[in-house]
Amino acid sequence: MYRRLLAASAVFALLSGVAHAQDVKTAETLRDKALLDRTAWDVAEDLTTTIGPRIVGSPAMARAKDWGAAKLKALGFTNVKVEQYAKSSWTRGEESAELTAPYPMKLTIVGLGRTPATPPEGIEAEVALFHTYAELVAAPEGSLKGKIAVITQPMVKAQDGYGYGVAGISRRAGPVEAAKRGAVALLIRSVSTSDSTVPHTGVTAFGDGVTTIPSAALGVPEAEQLERLAKKGPLRIRLKLASTVNPNNVAWNISGEIKGSEKPDEVIVIGGHLDSWDVGTGALDDATGVAITTAAAKLIGELPKHPKRTIRVVMWGSEESGGASEAYLAAHKDEVPKIVLAGESDEGADRIYGLKLPAGTQKTPFATTVANVLAPLKIYVARDAAENGGSDIEGLEEAGVPSIELRQDVTRYFDYHHTMDDTLNKVDPAQLAQNVAAWTSLIYLVADSDIDFRALRPAGAEAGKRRY
Amino acid sequence: MYRRLLAASAVFALLSGVAHAQDVKTAETLRDKALLDRTAWDVAEDLTTTIGPRIVGSPAMARAKDWGAAKLKALGFTNVKVEQYAKSSWTRGEESAELTAPYPMKLTIVGLGRTPATPPEGIEAEVALFHTYAELVAAPEGSLKGKIAVITQPMVKAQDGYGYGVAGISRRAGPVEAAKRGAVALLIRSVSTSDSTVPHTGVTAFGDGVTTIPSAALGVPEAEQLERLAKKGPLRIRLKLASTVNPNNVAWNISGEIKGSEKPDEVIVIGGHLDSWDVGTGALDDATGVAITTAAAKLIGELPKHPKRTIRVVMWGSEESGGASEAYLAAHKDEVPKIVLAGESDEGADRIYGLKLPAGTQKTPFATTVANVLAPLKIYVARDAAENGGSDIEGLEEAGVPSIELRQDVTRYFDYHHTMDDTLNKVDPAQLAQNVAAWTSLIYLVADSDIDFRALRPAGAEAGKRRY
Repeated sequence: MYRRLLAASAVFALLSGVAHAQDVKTAETLRDKALLDRTAWDVAEDLTTTIGPRIVGSPAMARAKDWGAAKLKALGFTNVKVEQYAKSSWTRGEESAELTAPYPMKLTIVGLGRTPATPPEGIEAEVALFHTYAELVAAPEGSLKGKIAVITQPMVKAQDGYGYGVAGISRRAGPVEAAKRGAVALLIRSVSTSDSTVPHTGVTAFGDGVTTIPSAALGVPEAEQLERLAKKGPLRIRLKLASTVNPNNVAWNISGEIKGSEKPDEVIVIGGHLDSWDVGTGALDDATGVAITTAAAKLIGELPKHPKRTIRVVMWGSEESGGASEAYLAAHKDEVPKIVLAGESDEGADRIYGLKLPAGTQKTPFATTVANVLAPLKIYVARDAAENGGSDIEGLEEAGVPSIELRQDVTRYFDYHHTMDDTLNKVDPAQLAQNVAAWTSLIYLVADSDIDFRALRPAGAEAGKRRY
Repeated sequence: MYRRLLAASAVFALLSGVAHAQDVKTAETLRDKALLDRTAWDVAEDLTTTIGPRIVGSPAMARAKDWGAAKLKALGFTNVKVEQYAKSSWTRGEESAELTAPYPMKLTIVGLGRTPATPPEGIEAEVALFHTYAELVAAPEGSLKGKIAVITQPMVKAQDGYGYGVAGISRRAGPVEAAKRGAVALLIRSVSTSDSTVPHTGVTAFGDGVTTIPSAALGVPEAEQLERLAKKGPLRIRLKLASTVNPNNVAWNISGEIKGSEKPDEVIVIGGHLDSWDVGTGALDDATGVAITTAAAKLIGELPKHPKRTIRVVMWGSEESGGASEAYLAAHKDEVPKIVLAGESDEGADRIYGLKLPAGTQKTPFATTVANVLAPLKIYVARDAAENGGSDIEGLEEAGVPSIELRQDVTRYFDYHHTMDDTLNKVDPAQLAQNVAAWTSLIYLVADSDIDFRALRPAGAEAGKRRY
């Protein structure tokens, strides 16, 4: 009941706010300007070129932190902050694998993020091959004793990335499940939609109380070769993984603001993550997310008058192995009620095709306005509500902050992500600009409105459900 | 004049031979059967799976030799021969490269085939970057003293592979030209049409009297990264290459026949090469060429009555670093006048789009018949004559043997060739079958005819011009 009353007053605010013709016109002007603006390209190029790969805890990540703060200042952001937090780091060493029977052949692998190392001499063992994660889980405990488990489950290519959650369980839970059954190591077919031998890393279960084993991802052709060979007879593989862990390392969330002109304490948090995996240069994951949101806020900041609310860009410091979201929430707990909306760009740089608004906002005049402004960019406003705006804003979402999802077409994204092929040449400048246009016009409309998205949320609507 | 008389009698033979309606019907039946036949797929799968990578001089190549002879026998070929010849071999060792300034970053490289090794500790030096091969050649002698030369010239994607010859000069001649100018090592952008970091190997100049330097190919994104970084300041790279050479090794040309029913001493030589690079499994280069030509001959051999002439499939033993062609010519010198035609399939497994016939054959009724039989496969008969049917038949061509070119669409081929991504999953079974259908019907028409292609050749027509 309380919620309903709030909702009604919010709708009033919304009508009086966004129906304002000048706002729509400004949003459209920003949108069209963004399509021709090269800030995002320059930011993505600069980050990937001058910093390169930047895994948490690396010297490159420390350089990236300085780069981020300097970039925000150079682009006109104010209140630039570098917020340090404790973060354990993991550093990859030398890795190799080879088939040793029925004949010797090198295998292209990459250790999963946070995998334990093998003994220095490696592990050589017979292979137990499973075509799906479910097949492995169906194996009795103890049945893989002394073996290297291999899971060859492929990933479905889908515009919305749905296949990542399905296939990704081999990476997330496979090592622990294989360990339970006695396996000495696990190899998974890369969680990838490509046909390439370039293997995909990504974080796997780790930490106190987790019993796991050395684990790596195999190139797609190698996984298929093993499947064919396994039909003909037993296989043996030798695997070497090395790595070091520093439990006392640090990471940083970096932020800067376009200060609101009328309600500067009401804040919209947008951003991408600054860290990347140690392979590739983290172009799609997530230099472009940083670039898109930074460019969008910068364009809005160049208006003769800033919108009412503050827009804060956060360059998140440790998305790939977690912790940035929790650290931010801990540092900004008191501010949470004033964070009116959050969003993250972390699905590459291909075009946005759909927008999910916070629960309760879909059928409002605000949604109609947004739909009209985004329509020329070929973006629809979805009937269903945002469920998770990105890993780094999960903490905020769980604390009650409404979020948006500007869904990118990830048909190509999972060909490259978490690989050495995540490089600048996979970024299409025209699609990148379409992203900036969408963020710029949408965030402007939010920032210059008085809408209380929390108040529109229907009773019982849940916050934050992890997408991937 | 002598040639003209011969040509006239050949046209007569052709009219009386190929205009035979039964031959056309048989060719069409074979063509349509081939489209549904899985022999080629099975051969390509078996070779890539049970043998894997098979560089000349490796234990895998010795297994491939036995595999080839056994496969021909199993498929009904007769007169199966394994012809050994002397062939120096080169074996890759550990290789690595990294940018050391302005910041440390691993570079994905692969040593060029037959490159000399670096000292065990590697070479670290400043970079001299050239955007094209021509830029490097324009540098004065001595100007690269103590430097690592880098050539970043890209390759044009073209259906006919024309870009390979243009860009490939960096690989073929770059090391020698860089050495002349004092460079201590050379890195080239992969001779590749992909956007992938997977680097492309391939043979470079080597042997007695060649002064060269350690040379490797860089992934495409790495080459582009170096170009961008070079604009900002000096670069340094560390390169390690290891390899061993065995000058006293051997290779083998393997052959089997579908014996002619009327003129068994007249021979048509077709085939692909059995060797591959040591990265990938040599699926497109050239398991599929072996598979296509073997399957075509096998299908013809299953006819109730063999065609008049003998069809000989040769699995060539050392295409990648040369020597198979010369060895075959030396061993078969006396037989050359009876080899009526030669052809090689060595451009992957994508569809054939054009046929080039031997010079003088283009405007004959035979060409018309062939054009009609191949038209449903979407293959045209080109106005221009075959210039080079493949590296392994160059020796035969230079000795006067007419050749054909069944030109494959190589739009995708140079994304993968000479890389670890040359694997079975790049083979499209439908396009593979179209290849078999073309070879089967064309070779049947040749084998059951009496045409003397040599006699049709106009005076002054040149043999063998290297395509790539």
